[in-house]
Amino acid sequence: MAALTLTEQLIKQHLVSGDPTPGSEIALRIDQTLTQDATGTLVMLELEALNLQRAHTEVSVQYVDHNLLQEDHKNPDDHLFLESAAKRFGLWFSRPGNGVSHPLHQQRFGKPGATLLGSDSHTCAAGALGMLAIGAGGLEVAMAIAGEPFYVKMPRVWNIRLEGDLPAWVSAKDIILELLRRHGVKGGVGYTLEYTGSGLEHLSAMDRHVIANMGAELGATASVFPSDEQTRRYLHSQARPEDWQPMSAEPDASYDRVETIVLDTLEPMIAKPTSPGNVTTVREVAGEPIYQAYVGSSANPGFRDFAVVAEMVRGKRVADGVSLDINPSSRQILTRLAKDGHLVALLQAGARLHQAGCNGCIGMGQAPATGRNSLRTVPRNFPGRSGTREDRVFLVSPETAAASALTGRITDPRDCEMQYPRIQDSEEPITQDDCFLPPMDPPHALRVDLVKGPNIHSLPESDPIKDVIEVPVLLSVGDNISTDEILPAGARVLPFRSNIPRISEFVYVDVDPDYVKRAGEHQGGHAIVGGANYGQGSSREHAAIAPRYLGLELVIAKSFARIHWQNLVNFGVLPLSVIDDDDVESLQQGDQLRIENPMEQIRGGDEVTVQNVTRSSQFTTRHDLSARQQDVLAAGGLIAWKRMQKS
Amino acid sequence: MAALTLTEQLIKQHLVSGDPTPGSEIALRIDQTLTQDATGTLVMLELEALNLQRAHTEVSVQYVDHNLLQEDHKNPDDHLFLESAAKRFGLWFSRPGNGVSHPLHQQRFGKPGATLLGSDSHTCAAGALGMLAIGAGGLEVAMAIAGEPFYVKMPRVWNIRLEGDLPAWVSAKDIILELLRRHGVKGGVGYTLEYTGSGLEHLSAMDRHVIANMGAELGATASVFPSDEQTRRYLHSQARPEDWQPMSAEPDASYDRVETIVLDTLEPMIAKPTSPGNVTTVREVAGEPIYQAYVGSSANPGFRDFAVVAEMVRGKRVADGVSLDINPSSRQILTRLAKDGHLVALLQAGARLHQAGCNGCIGMGQAPATGRNSLRTVPRNFPGRSGTREDRVFLVSPETAAASALTGRITDPRDCEMQYPRIQDSEEPITQDDCFLPPMDPPHALRVDLVKGPNIHSLPESDPIKDVIEVPVLLSVGDNISTDEILPAGARVLPFRSNIPRISEFVYVDVDPDYVKRAGEHQGGHAIVGGANYGQGSSREHAAIAPRYLGLELVIAKSFARIHWQNLVNFGVLPLSVIDDDDVESLQQGDQLRIENPMEQIRGGDEVTVQNVTRSSQFTTRHDLSARQQDVLAAGGLIAWKRMQKS
Repeated sequence: MAALTLTEQLIKQHLVSGDPTPGSEIALRIDQTLTQDATGTLVMLELEALNLQRAHTEVSVQYVDHNLLQEDHKNPDDHLFLESAAKRFGLWFSRPGNGVSHPLHQQRFGKPGATLLGSDSHTCAAGALGMLAIGAGGLEVAMAIAGEPFYVKMPRVWNIRLEGDLPAWVSAKDIILELLRRHGVKGGVGYTLEYTGSGLEHLSAMDRHVIANMGAELGATASVFPSDEQTRRYLHSQARPEDWQPMSAEPDASYDRVETIVLDTLEPMIAKPTSPGNVTTVREVAGEPIYQAYVGSSANPGFRDFAVVAEMVRGKRVADGVSLDINPSSRQILTRLAKDGHLVALLQAGARLHQAGCNGCIGMGQAPATGRNSLRTVPRNFPGRSGTREDRVFLVSPETAAASALTGRITDPRDCEMQYPRIQDSEEPITQDDCFLPPMDPPHALRVDLVKGPNIHSLPESDPIKDVIEVPVLLSVGDNISTDEILPAGARVLPFRSNIPRISEFVYVDVDPDYVKRAGEHQGGHAIVGGANYGQGSSREHAAIAPRYLGLELVIAKSFARIHWQNLVNFGVLPLSVIDDDDVESLQQGDQLRIENPMEQIRGGDEVTVQNVTRSSQFTTRHDLSARQQDVLAAGGLIAWKRMQKS
Repeated sequence: MAALTLTEQLIKQHLVSGDPTPGSEIALRIDQTLTQDATGTLVMLELEALNLQRAHTEVSVQYVDHNLLQEDHKNPDDHLFLESAAKRFGLWFSRPGNGVSHPLHQQRFGKPGATLLGSDSHTCAAGALGMLAIGAGGLEVAMAIAGEPFYVKMPRVWNIRLEGDLPAWVSAKDIILELLRRHGVKGGVGYTLEYTGSGLEHLSAMDRHVIANMGAELGATASVFPSDEQTRRYLHSQARPEDWQPMSAEPDASYDRVETIVLDTLEPMIAKPTSPGNVTTVREVAGEPIYQAYVGSSANPGFRDFAVVAEMVRGKRVADGVSLDINPSSRQILTRLAKDGHLVALLQAGARLHQAGCNGCIGMGQAPATGRNSLRTVPRNFPGRSGTREDRVFLVSPETAAASALTGRITDPRDCEMQYPRIQDSEEPITQDDCFLPPMDPPHALRVDLVKGPNIHSLPESDPIKDVIEVPVLLSVGDNISTDEILPAGARVLPFRSNIPRISEFVYVDVDPDYVKRAGEHQGGHAIVGGANYGQGSSREHAAIAPRYLGLELVIAKSFARIHWQNLVNFGVLPLSVIDDDDVESLQQGDQLRIENPMEQIRGGDEVTVQNVTRSSQFTTRHDLSARQQDVLAAGGLIAWKRMQKS
């Protein structure tokens, strides 16, 4: 038998079903889950809809880190709801102010050899500790909490060999930026990145977190680091030495792809607006004036990342007109910075200290001024993500951010006239005074009522698929409709994320503002006709749930984007692809469509016949559903299916 | 000559003109000004419109403390604009993150014997240092910066004698809450409160700030404390011993009113929703569950106020479901809390640490959950001010907030099972590392360009009053129209505070949404007809500037609210009161009004004749303008008047 990579070992140890060859769907046992508040309220409503008694995972944690700005009742109501749901379902609860989910999870719960599924795309950061950690949609995480395996395509494994040691003024962020420079934002799709090499000796567990976290920006399924002496030291310092075990690839394991980075040759890197893949050297853009230098986020969350900035600005003053924003990543790290004097150095230099959390990284405050450059240690610089339309956000290391804050211009930190401050992490175990609420014991948990503010509504029930689907086409759209067009994001809509009836009022509002009204007038259900690549873009489940709530039963399109197609099935909507694209062109809004015995047709073969009653014609479609998905659809969606399984 | 109170001494030393007997208008020389960002952008635009070369005051400081949440470009653009304006006009600039204007001003600039005018209603807090400090409208502060005196009615003086010493667990906040309990929110109108008595020995300068600050809630013009040993100690600790001088009432000075509070008899007090005057004892409402305990704001800004909370929660844990929000009032105090371990105690107990600034006190974040009780050390609990509609905000001391955070219920701090932690303020002078930018030297300052983001527009020019006013009535409204109806506040409108053309689109939008359109169609100017008490409510100047920008030249009403009446004059709109209310009733929208030689009529006597051209009738009105105001109006408003004076 061939020697296994660490990725293959982790998969083998958690394989429930499927063939672990690249591209095949496999089912994995999930040990731990992570939910944050922006996606978590829906996950908790899904658990409620599932009638879940108690989480089946080893550890599930509900964090509150995204929506900390409380401008009205909605966010604090969500916090109280999440706290009550965590108690009800037996989860850990991380209270607001504790910090960002990813570093917190690493500090408190991550352990080598475990699987982690999280409803946040940067869940992959936990690969830093030798875990297999993957970001997924909320319902998939809900199913994992309910004990279902997670279905994913077996990735290929790409070995990234880090050799040598980093020069002064160059740190982990520059390594992942260098990978993004080489391969761009789609370079990792279909792969797990597995890191090895002598360079790992010099990278702490939190340095590795920086690299694993931004594997998401390469499009990789996961990133995996070995569990070694650095991992042991880290877990020791977190007062969890018992969670350590050594893990690494077997000798002579072979990889689908191998690449080497010689650390000694790296220099400070920077991703220019407006993509994490738009990378060049800092030297190349040095001298441009800046408005902001921003330190924090899951892409530079370590104690070191703040302490090095503190040592660089100690006794100096941030340049006039520059906002140096410090976003502590966790209560633990903020406490350490306060204890050992780093915080005072930052404050005295003029830094603005913000609440521990995600903050401006996801557009919650700290937007830059019009037309001004913002240097950030965050993972993403997509246009407008900062809150300022046509922003100019650059992604950098903490060293580059600090050097630039002092000069007021983009500055290569190697030009600082000082010795590079190497931060030694304390090996002394910290006290776990991080204000988590542990899972409530079962007898009490079952008696907890979910605390629902006026903006939080239980998920609507969805019915099993009908024996005969006969519905009118209420909307016909073109190619490449995105989930942003199906259900917009932004401050107008997102506050209703836990209120399906209310958020449904925004479905297709920018494409056809009368669609919602028409749907309301056809209580018997309806169909939508789409073009090619229907449902591309963001994976948000609301783009399936909200139209379903309005009565959507059937989508006929030329082709579907993968995740939205899956979301439609998961929420009980039948997606059918035409075989002849002309059949889509011939369909008109108002046409009455009819499908006889849909489940019989689906179970009987690949094709489904659709009659156009209005035009007395018919055409043939493909369903592409796996046997499992057929069962899900028959039940009326994944939640109904899971409930039927239990009863 | 009669012995003078301290208030009378301060007035006498600054009297420019007028008769200092209660109720008469006096003109005072202003030594210092304070502007914050929410009101300051307009003040800076007014200075620009005045063509001001350089501030005439001894000290003028532009703070940034209100709009720190940067959800898009507007707030950071304002910050950069204010920084450039401070440089241009020779002001000090307090950068974002430095903290709340009032405690910062006390720390850095306040000094016994000076006058301070500020565009914030809590400017009165500076009375803690033996200053005469008054809150005023933005244009009044702009005029003071330009060297004009400040016009105010000579107040009566009310002596509050504080006797004895506070018991354990009772602090300065309870003193001012007791005064509010006794006299309500209008009890201080027309008065300056002058504090004396043996109890002052035990009240630090920052304790006095707490009391002086909330004098605004009693409606008092100002609050004045003597400058004594406590003041000397404070200025010494702020490394400004040279700014101290002793000041107090002359022996045998007589007051218009005298009242005594025996401190030893006080107990913890609480203002219940929804008024600062709705005061009872904490004991009375103890036991009610809370969602939030909030520490900070200009109403409890002292180091002591945070340190006592830290000592109370040290080694303990905030109750589940309770948000303990710490809002540092200044960078200096946050730095001290970090240095001496208090911050660590707060964090380890589960507190959420926010950026230094006003924050939730003025609805910028930290809104409470629906229907939940919020205990706050802030000065005001008007309905909805927290951001949550129908909120339940209680005003308390830091001791009561901390005791309640630990139990999760409103708790009398005397029920804490611990010794009262008396905080000793350090006497060692602090380093002034507070990141202010000092005034730029004149040659460079004059070359600074104002940095205007796309939402910042110069003030429109306004023309001198015409020889003949002939304008149509474009709107007729009823009695008690408030400035909120003339120009709404809130998140829809306020972001355009520095953009008169844009904010003008909201004038009367909720009363008559077509008014703005009609005004645009009558470029030759127009009139509005109002009922009794026209322009009541908030003092915001935009309610005069924006209609003026739309072409408003004349308001005819049964009667006017005082401040709005003054604002109309200041921005060049002629306000006339009818003598017979029926004359207002007879006016219709569309009527063409005509006033021949308005300035001649005004200068010639009390009355102005208005012809109704449409109805071929006429009626008589009163103008009530002082000689100074007549000049202002003739010039087209205060800014034009001041510019004429200089040329």
